[in-house]
Amino acid sequence: MDKRLAQLPWGAPVNFLGLPEGDAHEFEAAGVVILPVPYEATVSYMGGTRFGPRRILEASRYIELYDHEMDTEPHSIGVHTLPELLLSGAGPEAALAELREACDALLAREKFVIMLGGEHSISAPPIQAHASRLGATRRLSVLQLDAHGDLRSKYEGTPFSHACVMYRVHQDVDLVPVGIRAITSDERALMRAKKIPTIFGHELDPEGKWIERALASLGQDVYITIDIDFFDPSLVPSTGTPEPGGGTWYPTLRLLERVFTERHVVGVDVVELAPIPGVVAPDFLAAKLVYKLVAYHQRAHGADSRGR
Amino acid sequence: MDKRLAQLPWGAPVNFLGLPEGDAHEFEAAGVVILPVPYEATVSYMGGTRFGPRRILEASRYIELYDHEMDTEPHSIGVHTLPELLLSGAGPEAALAELREACDALLAREKFVIMLGGEHSISAPPIQAHASRLGATRRLSVLQLDAHGDLRSKYEGTPFSHACVMYRVHQDVDLVPVGIRAITSDERALMRAKKIPTIFGHELDPEGKWIERALASLGQDVYITIDIDFFDPSLVPSTGTPEPGGGTWYPTLRLLERVFTERHVVGVDVVELAPIPGVVAPDFLAAKLVYKLVAYHQRAHGADSRGR
Amino acid sequence: MDKRLAQLPWGAPVNFLGLPEGDAHEFEAAGVVILPVPYEATVSYMGGTRFGPRRILEASRYIELYDHEMDTEPHSIGVHTLPELLLSGAGPEAALAELREACDALLAREKFVIMLGGEHSISAPPIQAHASRLGATRRLSVLQLDAHGDLRSKYEGTPFSHACVMYRVHQDVDLVPVGIRAITSDERALMRAKKIPTIFGHELDPEGKWIERALASLGQDVYITIDIDFFDPSLVPSTGTPEPGGGTWYPTLRLLERVFTERHVVGVDVVELAPIPGVVAPDFLAAKLVYKLVAYHQRAHGADSRGR
Amino acid sequence: MDKRLAQLPWGAPVNFLGLPEGDAHEFEAAGVVILPVPYEATVSYMGGTRFGPRRILEASRYIELYDHEMDTEPHSIGVHTLPELLLSGAGPEAALAELREACDALLAREKFVIMLGGEHSISAPPIQAHASRLGATRRLSVLQLDAHGDLRSKYEGTPFSHACVMYRVHQDVDLVPVGIRAITSDERALMRAKKIPTIFGHELDPEGKWIERALASLGQDVYITIDIDFFDPSLVPSTGTPEPGGGTWYPTLRLLERVFTERHVVGVDVVELAPIPGVVAPDFLAAKLVYKLVAYHQRAHGADSRGR
Amino acid sequence: MDKRLAQLPWGAPVNFLGLPEGDAHEFEAAGVVILPVPYEATVSYMGGTRFGPRRILEASRYIELYDHEMDTEPHSIGVHTLPELLLSGAGPEAALAELREACDALLAREKFVIMLGGEHSISAPPIQAHASRLGATRRLSVLQLDAHGDLRSKYEGTPFSHACVMYRVHQDVDLVPVGIRAITSDERALMRAKKIPTIFGHELDPEGKWIERALASLGQDVYITIDIDFFDPSLVPSTGTPEPGGGTWYPTLRLLERVFTERHVVGVDVVELAPIPGVVAPDFLAAKLVYKLVAYHQRAHGADSRGR
Amino acid sequence: MDKRLAQLPWGAPVNFLGLPEGDAHEFEAAGVVILPVPYEATVSYMGGTRFGPRRILEASRYIELYDHEMDTEPHSIGVHTLPELLLSGAGPEAALAELREACDALLAREKFVIMLGGEHSISAPPIQAHASRLGATRRLSVLQLDAHGDLRSKYEGTPFSHACVMYRVHQDVDLVPVGIRAITSDERALMRAKKIPTIFGHELDPEGKWIERALASLGQDVYITIDIDFFDPSLVPSTGTPEPGGGTWYPTLRLLERVFTERHVVGVDVVELAPIPGVVAPDFLAAKLVYKLVAYHQRAHGADSRGR
Repeated sequence: MDKRLAQLPWGAPVNFLGLPEGDAHEFEAAGVVILPVPYEATVSYMGGTRFGPRRILEASRYIELYDHEMDTEPHSIGVHTLPELLLSGAGPEAALAELREACDALLAREKFVIMLGGEHSISAPPIQAHASRLGATRRLSVLQLDAHGDLRSKYEGTPFSHACVMYRVHQDVDLVPVGIRAITSDERALMRAKKIPTIFGHELDPEGKWIERALASLGQDVYITIDIDFFDPSLVPSTGTPEPGGGTWYPTLRLLERVFTERHVVGVDVVELAPIPGVVAPDFLAAKLVYKLVAYHQRAHGADSRGR
Repeated sequence: MDKRLAQLPWGAPVNFLGLPEGDAHEFEAAGVVILPVPYEATVSYMGGTRFGPRRILEASRYIELYDHEMDTEPHSIGVHTLPELLLSGAGPEAALAELREACDALLAREKFVIMLGGEHSISAPPIQAHASRLGATRRLSVLQLDAHGDLRSKYEGTPFSHACVMYRVHQDVDLVPVGIRAITSDERALMRAKKIPTIFGHELDPEGKWIERALASLGQDVYITIDIDFFDPSLVPSTGTPEPGGGTWYPTLRLLERVFTERHVVGVDVVELAPIPGVVAPDFLAAKLVYKLVAYHQRAHGADSRGR
Repeated sequence: MDKRLAQLPWGAPVNFLGLPEGDAHEFEAAGVVILPVPYEATVSYMGGTRFGPRRILEASRYIELYDHEMDTEPHSIGVHTLPELLLSGAGPEAALAELREACDALLAREKFVIMLGGEHSISAPPIQAHASRLGATRRLSVLQLDAHGDLRSKYEGTPFSHACVMYRVHQDVDLVPVGIRAITSDERALMRAKKIPTIFGHELDPEGKWIERALASLGQDVYITIDIDFFDPSLVPSTGTPEPGGGTWYPTLRLLERVFTERHVVGVDVVELAPIPGVVAPDFLAAKLVYKLVAYHQRAHGADSRGR
Repeated sequence: MDKRLAQLPWGAPVNFLGLPEGDAHEFEAAGVVILPVPYEATVSYMGGTRFGPRRILEASRYIELYDHEMDTEPHSIGVHTLPELLLSGAGPEAALAELREACDALLAREKFVIMLGGEHSISAPPIQAHASRLGATRRLSVLQLDAHGDLRSKYEGTPFSHACVMYRVHQDVDLVPVGIRAITSDERALMRAKKIPTIFGHELDPEGKWIERALASLGQDVYITIDIDFFDPSLVPSTGTPEPGGGTWYPTLRLLERVFTERHVVGVDVVELAPIPGVVAPDFLAAKLVYKLVAYHQRAHGADSRGR
Repeated sequence: MDKRLAQLPWGAPVNFLGLPEGDAHEFEAAGVVILPVPYEATVSYMGGTRFGPRRILEASRYIELYDHEMDTEPHSIGVHTLPELLLSGAGPEAALAELREACDALLAREKFVIMLGGEHSISAPPIQAHASRLGATRRLSVLQLDAHGDLRSKYEGTPFSHACVMYRVHQDVDLVPVGIRAITSDERALMRAKKIPTIFGHELDPEGKWIERALASLGQDVYITIDIDFFDPSLVPSTGTPEPGGGTWYPTLRLLERVFTERHVVGVDVVELAPIPGVVAPDFLAAKLVYKLVAYHQRAHGADSRGR
Repeated sequence: MDKRLAQLPWGAPVNFLGLPEGDAHEFEAAGVVILPVPYEATVSYMGGTRFGPRRILEASRYIELYDHEMDTEPHSIGVHTLPELLLSGAGPEAALAELREACDALLAREKFVIMLGGEHSISAPPIQAHASRLGATRRLSVLQLDAHGDLRSKYEGTPFSHACVMYRVHQDVDLVPVGIRAITSDERALMRAKKIPTIFGHELDPEGKWIERALASLGQDVYITIDIDFFDPSLVPSTGTPEPGGGTWYPTLRLLERVFTERHVVGVDVVELAPIPGVVAPDFLAAKLVYKLVAYHQRAHGADSRGR
């Protein structure tokens, strides 16, 4: 464009936060990378998780860039939004292999990646990628905020279902499920056998003891996977199987802030938002949650903010 | 079907929980019977209560059969779903007479009936049937979870309106209304005159004193009628006249669990769900609430689980 | 149930048309079998085809059983609705293999099967099953009512996508696509190379010459696959990629009626309905369309109405 | 209000067309009276007809007062909108008796009444009131634009259902049903036995022969009842049981215009609009249809415009 | 109307609460005047605030007139609903000047005005009108319940945007913002520079200390402006930019009740409701909130209830 | 991005058609420029036109790039999508002045601009810009496809309303309105006085004589403004004031194709799409319409495809 055109009142680009393209937010320079993965293949009560990333990006454009709780400008770390990653339609195994390659490629570039889903099955590849990078001497903790256990060994004929995602990684990482309120008896048996330190939905006490319990179970290196159905359906009705009795806004932020402060967070994802047409409040909550994650990461990493 | 066909991956039948038909869940064997009554005749702000039972059944198919809070499999008591009962269009008096006959017929079979509405007017027939069965020596308590008093003597030209349902039974039973937050001055005068031990919406304290108060007002034999608008509209916007300031999930479960444990519950209903197209979270909450009622009943009745 | 209970005004069962279970509509006796396949795995603009079969069944309960255009009671042939067939989540290839087995098993029982989708990829297995049954000497014609060519060789990394379904069968059958109005240049080249007698959307003339053209292209044995997006979006907005300029109600019926009268129809499917919450008119149209197919089949087969 | 307040830019009142209250549009002076009857008691596929009158009034405020097809200002005849008439909740018989009294009272005042429903059962009282006024020597014709026959003798336990409305009047008037496309075999038998000159949906030919046929069947005095489901669901999806294959806009206007010109129309109603939240086009169509009826009436009655 | 017509069961008029017109609720006699201002010109995430007043009025018709928490009949003070005020489309400056004239004209009549928006920019004219009436010796406090600071000096090229409304008045009044959870760094700097006693969203503690803080900051004369997005989106998703972490029902009522009791409230507004089609719970909450304001005003002003 | 990252299956960018950025579709190289103007300030029945451009872009990504009716690849001309142009909130006069500057700047670059609205008021600036460029010797024709006349001199206090857009330009250009079916008597008088060759909605005959009439009225240089409410509401319910009796798909394409072939089209716009959440068919129609305009322009301009 020439100068005359450039002076016109153009709107913000379609990326997370509507940030100006280039400079601090270029891929190379950015400390944080947003990876949208609109993958939806296995089935739940309501569908539509493939529209989750797009609606989060759209809502994010209306978030104030300044964070008044922290008195910071979290975007200053540089936030780059990648295009949507369209995984193979040949089945979940092939799709997740593609995603693993994407995760490895991004981690090779030392980026702090925030992945937006899409169904929960996509959390396994980044968790495995991070666990693999840590190597044999350090063990990854996974903080799983979720209504469902996702600890089935197989579901609808495949071990790659969203209902199996935590089963697939539970041997390789220390799993800390929080907010769980829908499981099978087999999942309960596994939790008991493997001594998985689960915090159930009815244990999310107003005094916040659950926050201490969750922190105490986490090791030094933490991956956070947030299934948006962790939140109470009054806040987020927009999800496949909305279970009553979930988490609320400020206590959840308190937990997340402390994890970033007191542990080393290697990556995060926010999945399972299935937007309801015409009802944008849950999309906005998800977008603001993602920006809070950026803010906590930015404060934790200061000037040198690459994820490591 | 032949064996080859039978081996195919068929989905669950359309009943409460999607249980396999036959065996434990046959009408004869089942300890619990679900009675859908999609009756909607008198008018409120939003309509659609006749779709309530259908959406509760649909949502129930996505509930985990295992109850992790109680560590039980509540369905093991046998849960049979009846077809929808289609009441007469000739007016509420005729319709409710039909329903009374249905209640009497089911009680004659010693079933524990969970009725799904439909509008609240349908609660009078089962309450009257139970009161009648108890006879002169024992008096039925009715725990009414509700936003509205429903104590009008007449409404829109008829004493059979949903707004009159509790007036119609209040002489014959001990009424314990909980969560009330919309009444007329006449209803208030009646509450005072009859010393009805009402717990108002603004009295649902976080410490749970209201639970003790409610329990203390209940006699030994209890019928529970749950107008879904008892719950806060943030949880259940899907109802005819959603009043802010209602009940929340876990405290309500605590009350219900204790009533089943400390009293003899003879029957229950869940009414007034008016599903909003595309917003399934409230339908799911209602379905899960119904399953919690099954669970509390199952534990209370153990091996011999017929309602009596 | 005992007699007292049986006399109550129970609603119709949840099957196609809400027919009484047993007798003429039992699987063994029924001339027509409805096979719901809520399969949705590959992606389009809007989703929700997995809810198609359920909404068609629900809508069908409000259809009059008498067909006044034909002056018949088409249901008298016996119409049995199977449970939903839940295909594997392991990927489209495995899922479609399961469906092929289901088709073979049903054809072995000599049933006239009307399959309800679900996404269009599920049409390949029944077409292949029928082509295989006809053997080397008779060649199956496939009448494809559709907005899209579905003649891609591969889409999103798989040859089993809904966008490839007709490519997968085009070598083995005589394809007659009607209503097409969205194709790639590759699909157009294939149509030309293979001399596929395509009738495009803009060729659906009000005088009905297209009906004659379509009939002329069809051989003796015909399978009909109706992608609901064939219809104009004014009639059916409820589909993944609604293309303007589609078919209308009465002319489409005229074509279908004649195909049943003048050819031997071996099977049909109606796919790609993606219901919009709160907008039931398209669901009702789809249900009525299915009943018209039953009616045409019933008249063609008279007393001995098995599909052969 | 004082003068200073009166000068502020106040919006139009909430009545049909948003007309200024008083003067020509006062009840006494008005030639046309709009009677909203939000009655909904018997059940169909989708509900919500009780919101029909309100949404028609709301939409009517955006209609241009000038009619360019007729080059007239139809509102100049005086159009008065009555409050909603709330019929008894004691059952359809009581409710319709109330409505009959309202019709008699309005006809005693020589008003041309346009009734807005609500469900179709409300058409019987005005038809009976008009037939009664005509007396023994003149017989009323009823032009019924409708998808359904509504000729059942009883439905859901009552002869006062919307599905019975035409059966209830068919002995007393000459019925001319147009657009019918859903009936039972009993209704068809009645049509044949009584020689009811029905024009079916598939007979609505583009050349307009059906218009001549309908006119030829009508006597001198005509009541018009328009069930909005007469229109094709592409135009009006907002109705209880939307049947494909219905009427279109301009041909329907042509018929109505001619009936007003060539016959004496004594009254009309427009019923069964069940608004879909967020989809206002059908509400607008219904409102514009009502204004067309005002226009045709105004031209037919010129200076002396009372309905007689 | 004559007596025969008058006896018919007419529904309530379309005004706030559906009150009978005339007598106590006439403009002259009424102590409270409802002023609907459906103004929407500047842009936010979701639109539709111009439908706010209409939906609040519609919902208000289903509110019980008796207030059981206060044991009063608040409507007895006389509540008159004005027509919608349609402000100029020539731009926000002209529109707000028109509104200022309306406010001045109503205050000259000594009415207690409850204004219903519409977007938040409309709050500046009544605040300025009240501040001007108080004169130089008394300074108006403004209690702002809001998610956003609205303290930008300019937004989208104009200082009259909804995002600037509090900036426009902050020099002339003592501003007390409550519930704020989205601001720019410039707004934060202004808050600090001007020592604006802001209570942020995360400071809304369950113990209610924030209520004391807010009261302590308020002077004797108070105008209350309630941006409905103050409430948590679980309660009110129906607003332009729904921010998680907002106010809840009973605590907010406790604050408002005390302000009316312990201060002199000169006027109020409730703005920014953007109704979601089919989801009426938030509309109902807003209507009930308005009636609570009437109740608090009525009790504060007793027999002589004019706003002063 | 590095090569490893570049090889991942990234989705298409968010622009019209989802075209790869750069090369032929860069601003400099592109023959066609898409200008989204989400301006919505003046009020109609339903709102939401500011979401029109965004939903058209989103839908456009699902359009096939090949045009089978013309057997061309219209995108090969180069199609560049500009960011949204956010006009001033200071009022319509200031906003439209900004837009005029944008139009002038783009025309100075010799681009063929397709503007996406937004409300109809935005059509005046490009029309005036083109008329001005043509100079005194050549007079611009404006083909207006529209349901409304938009010939008011003033509306809601401003001459810059969407209801006035054609009045504002009618002195300077030759106006050819088509599909008009809602006007005031003043607009009709102006049409008569100025001999504006209007084709009304009821004159859109199936034989297509209206197409000849429209062509005959157009001069050599033509600007096309398409208010999407020109189309029948069965096709496009998603607009502010949906008037029944509008245009249909293929005939409208026939007119547009001929205008491009037989005249010199200097620019076009598509405005007034107000998307209904969850109903995408009209968005898709609008997107496909825009691509048809690209196709007609591409064929008319061949290798040298700049708009002139």
